[in-house]
Amino acid sequence: MPRTAFFISDGTGITAESLGRSLLAQFENVEIRMITKPYIDTVEKARALADIIATTAMRDDEQPIIIDTIVDEAIREVIRGAIGFKVDIFSTFLKPLEQELGTHSSYSVGRTHSIGKDEAYMDRIQSVHFALDNDDGARTHQYNKADVILVGVSRCGKTPTSLYLALQFGIRAANYPLTEDDLDEDGSLKLPKALARHRHKLFGLTIDPRRLAAIRHERRPNSRYSSMDQCVQEVEQAEGLYRQMHIPYIDTTRFSVEEISTRMIAETGLSRRFSPR
Amino acid sequence: MPRTAFFISDGTGITAESLGRSLLAQFENVEIRMITKPYIDTVEKARALADIIATTAMRDDEQPIIIDTIVDEAIREVIRGAIGFKVDIFSTFLKPLEQELGTHSSYSVGRTHSIGKDEAYMDRIQSVHFALDNDDGARTHQYNKADVILVGVSRCGKTPTSLYLALQFGIRAANYPLTEDDLDEDGSLKLPKALARHRHKLFGLTIDPRRLAAIRHERRPNSRYSSMDQCVQEVEQAEGLYRQMHIPYIDTTRFSVEEISTRMIAETGLSRRFSPR
Repeated sequence: MPRTAFFISDGTGITAESLGRSLLAQFENVEIRMITKPYIDTVEKARALADIIATTAMRDDEQPIIIDTIVDEAIREVIRGAIGFKVDIFSTFLKPLEQELGTHSSYSVGRTHSIGKDEAYMDRIQSVHFALDNDDGARTHQYNKADVILVGVSRCGKTPTSLYLALQFGIRAANYPLTEDDLDEDGSLKLPKALARHRHKLFGLTIDPRRLAAIRHERRPNSRYSSMDQCVQEVEQAEGLYRQMHIPYIDTTRFSVEEISTRMIAETGLSRRFSPR
Repeated sequence: MPRTAFFISDGTGITAESLGRSLLAQFENVEIRMITKPYIDTVEKARALADIIATTAMRDDEQPIIIDTIVDEAIREVIRGAIGFKVDIFSTFLKPLEQELGTHSSYSVGRTHSIGKDEAYMDRIQSVHFALDNDDGARTHQYNKADVILVGVSRCGKTPTSLYLALQFGIRAANYPLTEDDLDEDGSLKLPKALARHRHKLFGLTIDPRRLAAIRHERRPNSRYSSMDQCVQEVEQAEGLYRQMHIPYIDTTRFSVEEISTRMIAETGLSRRFSPR
């Protein structure tokens, strides 16, 4: 029987879940079923959840783990009364922080999780539309407005990365595919004209050719496009270009979109227009 | 002089930052400069950072707040020695969790933050491409593969929401714009044919007409499209359709993309194909 963990929040649950997953990832040999319960923002919802938790405890024959970021005192009280092992982030850290900052914290439902929608919101949405309009080399005349231009072979991860940068950080990322159209006579890639003027904004992505072949195979099985030979050659040419032109680059094979994006920001010093809560 | 807070991680920094921002949001009357330092994964990097923290403490004339999720003991040791008020999530909660789970946790750099790239990764990337291919009613023949179909007037938030659902949860979300093309003779919206067969998958978005007019104005200033009259009318017609067809819907005016997405999941019971760390 696996243990159950509940991540409980009066907001989106994103903080409780990401902290909970990080903590529990440290216990690889324990099978844990993880359940996120967002928007527990009334005492009634908390009571109904406490019942579910009690049923789960009976079924598992072990008390569930409860990780919450609820702010409201009355709601917290109900969850505190539930059957479970509690990891209480807020009450553990807020009191000491109050002392350190010499002020009281505002315990107010939802306030923690609300996100400023005005300027930051507009920046974010505009960045998403910028990424879409400038996806896959579709346009190049807006590159002067780009914060970064991702380059790489087809299906190496450019599109998801540009969208993540836009949604998560409000960064305006264009992306441009490196293809055989830009091969020189000697068989090496040359920097496409549209990119030459923006060399300082370029960031390269590369990928293990085997992984690339597998991804392309999903899209066009048994084609030249997805063949191992083709993938090896394209990746070699792209990496050659990065080295020759001193374009910083990252291998996306081992990394998630979060990791690629945050590593890029750390390496380039790109600045965010938006910070997620 | 504002206080400074450092969110420090050996991985992406996403957990430390989201927890840190939630905690510090409780102190509205304190001005806090927040700095995220991801990928502090060697003792050398930690030492360099400890120097930066010391300089910051001198400049602020107050010790910085340090919130970290570093796993490796040697690196933690360096950060523990830095000048600052420390919120040490891992050591506070891992020991008690070890006892509760009756096992040791694996302290291994990076392992916490790595994300399984295989099936979950493929699901995620496929969901992003699904959202792009099925954006703005571009195609309708793949709706049988959609987990959800977002409907709403132009610029009410459909595209960012579908992309967030794909990136964050691996959910395949199509989106379809409600336009005057689907008006009935009596001036009310009718359900477009392409959607009728998938009524159970529909989820509506609505928005305050004033906000909609402002957003549209950014795109096409002083047009009929962005006029207040037009926005009021379109929103009324869309909401009329939702009520008539019993389509669940959400008002995006006050909510962030995170909130819209997680509320939708909570309301519809959509299941995730991917869980972010």
